[in-house]
Amino acid sequence: MLHALLIKGTFQDSVTLMLLSRDLSALPGVKSVAVMMGTPANKDVYRETGHWHDTLAAATPNDLCLVVDSDSGDPAIAESMAKQVKARLAELARGRRNAGYPVVRSWRRARQLLPDANIALISIAGHYAFAPARQALEDGCHVMMFSDNVSLEQELELKTVAAMRGLLVMGPDCGTAIINGAPLAFSNRMPPGPIAIVGASGTGIQELASQIALRGGGVSHALGLGGRDLSEHIGGMSAITALGLVANDAASRVIVFVSKPPAPAVKARVLEAMQAIGKPVVALFLGERPTRCDIGNVHLVRTLDAAAALALELANMDTLAGELPSVARQGICGLYTGGTLAAEAALLLAEALDLASDAAHADGYMLRAAGHRIIDLGDDAYTRSRPHPMIDSSSRNEMIRRLSDDTAIGVLLLDVVLGYGAQPDPAGEVARAVTALRAARGDQSPIVAIATLTGTAGDPQDRDSQAGKLKEAGIVVADSVRTAVLLATRVIAAKAPAVGAPPALLCAKPAIVNVGLRSFADDLHANGVQVVHQQWEPAAGGNERLQRLIAQMQ
Amino acid sequence: MLHALLIKGTFQDSVTLMLLSRDLSALPGVKSVAVMMGTPANKDVYRETGHWHDTLAAATPNDLCLVVDSDSGDPAIAESMAKQVKARLAELARGRRNAGYPVVRSWRRARQLLPDANIALISIAGHYAFAPARQALEDGCHVMMFSDNVSLEQELELKTVAAMRGLLVMGPDCGTAIINGAPLAFSNRMPPGPIAIVGASGTGIQELASQIALRGGGVSHALGLGGRDLSEHIGGMSAITALGLVANDAASRVIVFVSKPPAPAVKARVLEAMQAIGKPVVALFLGERPTRCDIGNVHLVRTLDAAAALALELANMDTLAGELPSVARQGICGLYTGGTLAAEAALLLAEALDLASDAAHADGYMLRAAGHRIIDLGDDAYTRSRPHPMIDSSSRNEMIRRLSDDTAIGVLLLDVVLGYGAQPDPAGEVARAVTALRAARGDQSPIVAIATLTGTAGDPQDRDSQAGKLKEAGIVVADSVRTAVLLATRVIAAKAPAVGAPPALLCAKPAIVNVGLRSFADDLHANGVQVVHQQWEPAAGGNERLQRLIAQMQ
Repeated sequence: MLHALLIKGTFQDSVTLMLLSRDLSALPGVKSVAVMMGTPANKDVYRETGHWHDTLAAATPNDLCLVVDSDSGDPAIAESMAKQVKARLAELARGRRNAGYPVVRSWRRARQLLPDANIALISIAGHYAFAPARQALEDGCHVMMFSDNVSLEQELELKTVAAMRGLLVMGPDCGTAIINGAPLAFSNRMPPGPIAIVGASGTGIQELASQIALRGGGVSHALGLGGRDLSEHIGGMSAITALGLVANDAASRVIVFVSKPPAPAVKARVLEAMQAIGKPVVALFLGERPTRCDIGNVHLVRTLDAAAALALELANMDTLAGELPSVARQGICGLYTGGTLAAEAALLLAEALDLASDAAHADGYMLRAAGHRIIDLGDDAYTRSRPHPMIDSSSRNEMIRRLSDDTAIGVLLLDVVLGYGAQPDPAGEVARAVTALRAARGDQSPIVAIATLTGTAGDPQDRDSQAGKLKEAGIVVADSVRTAVLLATRVIAAKAPAVGAPPALLCAKPAIVNVGLRSFADDLHANGVQVVHQQWEPAAGGNERLQRLIAQMQ
Repeated sequence: MLHALLIKGTFQDSVTLMLLSRDLSALPGVKSVAVMMGTPANKDVYRETGHWHDTLAAATPNDLCLVVDSDSGDPAIAESMAKQVKARLAELARGRRNAGYPVVRSWRRARQLLPDANIALISIAGHYAFAPARQALEDGCHVMMFSDNVSLEQELELKTVAAMRGLLVMGPDCGTAIINGAPLAFSNRMPPGPIAIVGASGTGIQELASQIALRGGGVSHALGLGGRDLSEHIGGMSAITALGLVANDAASRVIVFVSKPPAPAVKARVLEAMQAIGKPVVALFLGERPTRCDIGNVHLVRTLDAAAALALELANMDTLAGELPSVARQGICGLYTGGTLAAEAALLLAEALDLASDAAHADGYMLRAAGHRIIDLGDDAYTRSRPHPMIDSSSRNEMIRRLSDDTAIGVLLLDVVLGYGAQPDPAGEVARAVTALRAARGDQSPIVAIATLTGTAGDPQDRDSQAGKLKEAGIVVADSVRTAVLLATRVIAAKAPAVGAPPALLCAKPAIVNVGLRSFADDLHANGVQVVHQQWEPAAGGNERLQRLIAQMQ
């Protein structure tokens, strides 16, 4: 049997009330207790779930509605529950009295107390979220909307206003963001690092962050867009803004992007923006099966864990590339003794640079295009009447020597194959040849040498000491042909032109006005973020006609 | 100026002579020295490289030809070089006198000394390689042909004979193999382990082995096929045999396959064989861009390092699956609080099991097919009037409870999301719910629970202690949604039926007759492998008419 009761004028956020409902429902003598504010939407929920009671008809959005389902016919049970509700809310209020940050009733007052505020974090019911978001934008603040149930039209309007003012709207229905270590809404506490996450997927961003942390990495920022941002209607407006922000942020050296597959036209726009960034971008359009892995600086992956792993690898590579001499826009020459290694290098390089690999393979050329070449020195053209280069490196040494005049080549890719049958000191041979080449070319014409090592610790040549010889000669030892090619394309890439000024939003810890769920303000405060909590409740007691009237008067 | 000289009746293998040529070419007073046996093919090389001298006309395949290019016109230089050649060969012979293994002149004698021989390793010039290979097969031995320049017709004949006798022909042009730790030809010294490598690519196999070792893994065997095995003409005959061998080998729990893209009909046959194996197979057709990653037990990858990483992951998973209760052929139920995590699980499960994912997503069902289901509990259907399941797990707990009657479900996939905003002890909630479910279902109806953890060490809930709670409740903690789905599909897979008896070739260290390059015998002997070296030279002094006559008489 249902009993109901109104507690007038006690606005509370929905999460507080839902958790309260859950706890009260567990008490003896009741089947369920549902506590909600008397908004039209919540009244619908009472009706749809069979909890309607005529007492609710009089409730305003500022009234707390309490509906108790009990076997007992005694209406005193509602009174008893109401006492519990009041006690719990009083207890909560006591706990928050010394929150350590200001709690205010209006946006204007919040701005007075926190004039440097640059983000409004809005988590009130979607029906009411548009107005404060719009006000924040007009006041020059970026907006994160945790709120859902905001209409597509309102989203488009907010994002258009934001775009015109160079502001970012994260959301609506944006569950998570991290800006310079400040955790917004449902976010994870991340070590700082060079990877920026941008995404239209809450748990997607959280899982990427988590995977990055698990692998020992960290993030610069994580920017949410809201699940509809990449729809045809919204057109990726926030995605473009967010990509622009991280493009100009020095701390963000690698970008990971996650979303459902965007609308086709939007995808083209987003890919365009990613390519314009210049920095390495890992893109996961979850559900797509890309046939191509690399488009220049943009790397397409299929799973969250692959995205995190590749982002970390690219970040490490970026650090490494910074320590190597500049060979931007020069050619890559691969001289391989292993046919399969040459083939893999050619395939991956062709894909990354959008070149055709050499199908004919004449003279062992696995790729010869745009000033780049990958040669299989085990090809008949090189082994007629002389031993295979895995046994005798003289033919490769000779080809390395000849690169002294070929100064258009800036990167040398090599393999070093160990094991039974191979020569006793292949790394030593390569190291001497590269050292001689460097001496012949001089400092004016540097060459980046990147080698892979095929072999194990148990091999007669001893992998570790062979690797040591390569490193001593200034040769980078890559873990695989794939990483060797990734690094090669990275070092020949032209430096990305600075697109704009460093973005203020990302350069310092943000200052935040929190509108809605109180716990978000607690978490920000606990993380040393300047925050003012705006204790929001529907204006004019929730009377919409009155609200419109007030709005016209202002 | 060219000087030439023949040293009669001193057959030597080509690698020995090539290295000798290289060393002599470095001596003062000569431009180059070329030492080869007087085979028709080698005579062509002398002509083509401008080293022909009329003295060579009289050379037989058993005669050593010495051609010296020198500025000096004095023919004595050839005599002096010949002396050096003889001295070097004598030195080599001395060094090999106490090789520690028998050296014989005929196959028959080799078999008398090593009656258990089960492999002939043949590395003589391709022109001569067919006859000893055929003889070895007729004598019940498997064959590894390092030799190249064997005709396609001869390869087909050898492989047909082998297939009829249940024997394996690795090669021709097979550079590497490892059988039970025995290194054949150009191979790496590998730790033993559960991964079998099968491939039509020498350095491909070596690089896979190397990557596996680098990641802490090991191999059971590595079987080479020769680069033409997957051509339309040969039809993958050795590939099918090799896959059958590892399928029946208990030590091989995961198989990695590497080759260039096979002819289409051959690829279908090879994929068929892979699926029949039942065990996990990682397939790399280097140069293909598969749009699909998983076909049941067959996992398609694009790079060597991805192949090695996945093989190792599958091997670890295989060990783990062995410790879990049997839930073969049962259903998978995923109850996710994170929408993106649910979406990824649904996509990957749909692909692995060849199911359609649920496009409509009604009631949060991301997949509902063939007895499997993945549900997003953050869907509106579950969050109307109650908190999101990341805040309040009661809705998920209730759904877990209801699985007690749904005994068709054998695997439960879950996510545990940590961080600000999430509940204080999500792992504890899940652990209690799963423990209660297990108690309700009893031992007769086990359920495998696999959870992913989204969150970091810095999160308020502390990732490690949350993981500990899951493990304590017997819940597997997967590193990612991808690995969770991989494990789930692995445990519901029906056990592969035993296709045949354990293959003798793979059950013990092989015993080998080495025909050709002497160093291969040295390496085998050094690794404790029983070996007899057959010092091969062309029969009848290389006179082919005489050879045919002798063959007819036998």
